[in-house]
Amino acid sequence: MLTPKVQAVSWQEDLVVLLDQTKLPGQEIYLRTDKHLEIVDAIKSLAVRGAPAIGVAGGYAVVCAAREALQLPSEKKEDYFHSSLTRISNARPTAVNLRWAVERMYGAFQELGGAISQNIVDELLVEAKKIHQEDIAANQRMAEYGASLFTQPVGALTYCNTGDLATGGIGTAFGVLHQAYRDGKVTHVYTCETRPVMQGLRLTVWELYQNKIPFTAICDNMAALMMRDGKVGAVITGADRVAANGDSANKVGTYTLAVLAKYHNIPFYIAAPTSTFDFSLSSGDKIPIEERHDTEILHTLAPDNRHNFTVPVRNPSFDVTPNALITAIICEKGVLRAPYEQSIRDLANR
Amino acid sequence: MLTPKVQAVSWQEDLVVLLDQTKLPGQEIYLRTDKHLEIVDAIKSLAVRGAPAIGVAGGYAVVCAAREALQLPSEKKEDYFHSSLTRISNARPTAVNLRWAVERMYGAFQELGGAISQNIVDELLVEAKKIHQEDIAANQRMAEYGASLFTQPVGALTYCNTGDLATGGIGTAFGVLHQAYRDGKVTHVYTCETRPVMQGLRLTVWELYQNKIPFTAICDNMAALMMRDGKVGAVITGADRVAANGDSANKVGTYTLAVLAKYHNIPFYIAAPTSTFDFSLSSGDKIPIEERHDTEILHTLAPDNRHNFTVPVRNPSFDVTPNALITAIICEKGVLRAPYEQSIRDLANR
Repeated sequence: MLTPKVQAVSWQEDLVVLLDQTKLPGQEIYLRTDKHLEIVDAIKSLAVRGAPAIGVAGGYAVVCAAREALQLPSEKKEDYFHSSLTRISNARPTAVNLRWAVERMYGAFQELGGAISQNIVDELLVEAKKIHQEDIAANQRMAEYGASLFTQPVGALTYCNTGDLATGGIGTAFGVLHQAYRDGKVTHVYTCETRPVMQGLRLTVWELYQNKIPFTAICDNMAALMMRDGKVGAVITGADRVAANGDSANKVGTYTLAVLAKYHNIPFYIAAPTSTFDFSLSSGDKIPIEERHDTEILHTLAPDNRHNFTVPVRNPSFDVTPNALITAIICEKGVLRAPYEQSIRDLANR
Repeated sequence: MLTPKVQAVSWQEDLVVLLDQTKLPGQEIYLRTDKHLEIVDAIKSLAVRGAPAIGVAGGYAVVCAAREALQLPSEKKEDYFHSSLTRISNARPTAVNLRWAVERMYGAFQELGGAISQNIVDELLVEAKKIHQEDIAANQRMAEYGASLFTQPVGALTYCNTGDLATGGIGTAFGVLHQAYRDGKVTHVYTCETRPVMQGLRLTVWELYQNKIPFTAICDNMAALMMRDGKVGAVITGADRVAANGDSANKVGTYTLAVLAKYHNIPFYIAAPTSTFDFSLSSGDKIPIEERHDTEILHTLAPDNRHNFTVPVRNPSFDVTPNALITAIICEKGVLRAPYEQSIRDLANR
């Protein structure tokens, strides 16, 4: 069984502990907080990121919000708690895991009577830890299901970051690659740097190095060349939201890789736990795409190289890969194949 | 008629003047030199870049080398001159314009008697200026031929840098876009940042701004999303070497754009003067691809974010787009279409 090297999110001594991913790989700095707003800010700033990890962090943030509400006068408790839930849920729009975790926590809250008390805070912590534990277990099962898809040794290409740092456990796509590497079925990992925030070059490279998996980092625009040169026998990424027809939102650039994989006759896989599935959305067209600040792109240039005029920039953080380009979707309940409307409906009903 | 805003390469008061493009857009610094080795270094460091511009710089570098040889004892003149030509020719391997310019200068040298003298230095300068003037004229004709391909107003996507900075004149693909914009046929330009050296974000953005062409800068991995969203009706890039069958080497990532354009049913054009054509190469497989230093990629990260371990990186500077993905190639003699073996053979024989 594979184990994570670090914990992106954890609950320690009544505090939420987040590894500040904006400082990696140069510095390993942990943020410790019991304030839900600080967790919201950490999600917004990408200190904690990755759809499953922000789901886990969202669960703990709800516990913090409930504990804060507990200190308030009775007439303010409920309002405070409810507005906190909205704030947590809306910290980032695309990954559905955040909304999913908050809704699950709210469901637990209502089942427990729907009134803020010390007992309910304790029970919410139990539920948040359960979300976390389930994600760890889902990672493990995805790794096994996913690795079984690799039948002969290949180089594999991945995108963004989907390992320890992006989840509660060993990762989604990264866990699959890790398991397939241990099984001798993935021989080398190509990791795209993933502009503009460089999750691949900063975070995935760090995880590959720590797990002693042989790898090569490339710029995003070099993936096609690696495919053409026969270096890549499979592409696997995570997802931030999978619609009911299998259309999948993931880090911007994923759609490009899916088109390239199709053109080069290479399988394109997505690994995502069911907490990433949005069974209520009929297709990917309806997934909201977060547009982030232009400085993420423009401030990559060294200060001396920067423009002294305004540069219009688009910075969509995600794109949607249509189901037709996806060879299979790996979740903790098995491997889904087209027609996805059917396989995802079956999954929802399991 | 369009005019360039700056001169990337020029001959002024017996010196070669190069705008140092590594400092743009933050600082506009010119290098002035009469030493061929300094020009070679400027080509290697990308202070001067763009296939046509390094062809022009290569011509002037030959003049400098001949002038340096003139100062040497008779028995050393020829050896010095010949080894200088090799050094200039090999400064960068992919763009054929450099080798083309050196061979043309050497042809002139031989026609003039093949012995270093003040007269031959003067005549070589005439030839180098002729190469430069011809590039300016070729740019102008490409702009007109290329603009004629745009029949209805569209957004267009371009890559790397192909304007004033990359050529002797108004540019290759950039000149086409500029003319088509003036004609009302290109309404908006999307420019990819072009990792790792950011020629798009630093240089093309600067040129678009100076020429008051409406634009949006995006990361390379966002091009597919812009196509899917209907923002892009055509893709046009330059080239560093066009083989006899139309396969075209250009900045790494160009091949990706060509695959994406095909998938989205968008025309994909290349604009390149005949000095970029390598009639001796039967296909793109044989084009040497320069692999550059890993620091170009790794040092994009802020010093505090850098790895404290060795990161294996690939940094191929170019890729080859197969002819099947190219809608048309625009050169100064007209617009070439498939089958390119035929249209390029006809071009060679014109």
